Amino acid sequence: MTTTDPTPLEDTTPTEASHEHHHGYISDKSRYLARLKRIEGQARGLHRMVDEEQYCIDILTQVSAMKSALDGVAMGLLEDHLQHCVVDAARAGGEEAEEKLKEASAAISRLVRS
Amino acid sequence: MTTTDPTPLEDTTPTEASHEHHHGYISDKSRYLARLKRIEGQARGLHRMVDEEQYCIDILTQVSAMKSALDGVAMGLLEDHLQHCVVDAARAGGEEAEEKLKEASAAISRLVRS
Amino acid sequence: MTTTDPTPLEDTTPTEASHEHHHGYISDKSRYLARLKRIEGQARGLHRMVDEEQYCIDILTQVSAMKSALDGVAMGLLEDHLQHCVVDAARAGGEEAEEKLKEASAAISRLVRS
Amino acid sequence: MTTTDPTPLEDTTPTEASHEHHHGYISDKSRYLARLKRIEGQARGLHRMVDEEQYCIDILTQVSAMKSALDGVAMGLLEDHLQHCVVDAARAGGEEAEEKLKEASAAISRLVRS
Repeated sequence: MTTTDPTPLEDTTPTEASHEHHHGYISDKSRYLARLKRIEGQARGLHRMVDEEQYCIDILTQVSAMKSALDGVAMGLLEDHLQHCVVDAARAGGEEAEEKLKEASAAISRLVRS
Repeated sequence: MTTTDPTPLEDTTPTEASHEHHHGYISDKSRYLARLKRIEGQARGLHRMVDEEQYCIDILTQVSAMKSALDGVAMGLLEDHLQHCVVDAARAGGEEAEEKLKEASAAISRLVRS
Repeated sequence: MTTTDPTPLEDTTPTEASHEHHHGYISDKSRYLARLKRIEGQARGLHRMVDEEQYCIDILTQVSAMKSALDGVAMGLLEDHLQHCVVDAARAGGEEAEEKLKEASAAISRLVRS
Repeated sequence: MTTTDPTPLEDTTPTEASHEHHHGYISDKSRYLARLKRIEGQARGLHRMVDEEQYCIDILTQVSAMKSALDGVAMGLLEDHLQHCVVDAARAGGEEAEEKLKEASAAISRLVRS
């Protein structure tokens, strides 16, 4: 295997204290948790396929399915974020709005290029 | 959340009996298993971030990091597959070669579009 | 070549009359036009490389460069759209805001999956 | 527009003298040229849409369509490359095979991440 190792496990401690403001996704929290549970299961499934030395193409098929599932979660989170956090900030206006929009654009750019 | 649910968990039973032929990735098996363990940890990390109602943008950052880690594993598997399974089939020639190349192209196409 | 032909050339007549509202990107119009001129040049470059029967890998390198250039333009347009059209609609509120946000999310989803 | 300018127009002079070996795609050359002509038309269409100050979302839709068209061409070229250049090299064996496979993997990686 000549490709570089994956990005080191990102530090997932929140960059800012959990936001008092109600994040958009929270009204759908249980569904997000269920979807992420399934993605965790897909990750375990990949581990088992390699452990059982299954055929490369079958494993690659699962990797693509898992990437699509991650895209689905990301798009849901982004849509909720736009409809709540960004709209609230837009109405508040000023620097808060600008910062929220820059942040959202940077997150979208990372998603488009990952 | 208005986007569709993720692709249903794919059936990971091998499409063909575990290949007697030695898959390319097996010589790096322990490293793939370690990387997939980390990806499983990232999936659990995402679940915890949603459970703790962390900030949407922080969660999206982790999703992008996880997609990149999956790309890294996929590219390693694909490179090993080309260097072993596809090369062996190319030397064998005939239908086996054609089938292997078609299969590899289809897997690459899924990766490019996921 | 066994893969399907590309998506038929999309009809580029505007889905709605040119918006009286000032689109965000218009303040950067000349830069967008210059970047799109370069992308047109990249397309012509690809055509010439195939016409001159250049090496496949060199052509593929140019395709990736062109896709990245398109991503750059798309992210600029999206950022301008969020900062102007979406913010204006968010402040107006009601159905206009909801429609704008849905539209933006759908455009982001297409970009993430293309 | 706060995002960086696109990758500078790549130098498209071939990294190696036009290959005496027959590239796989050449048997489909006219179809590739026709598809690239259409992509050039899509680039001009984007330029016109910005020039006419059309609606941002409509332009973004065309960018996604153009990226998908580029993916279609790239996948065709890659499949032809695997079936000809890589297979020939695999049969020749030795360093030529290794180099061809490394090159193909690097090109696939660029495509997956663009």
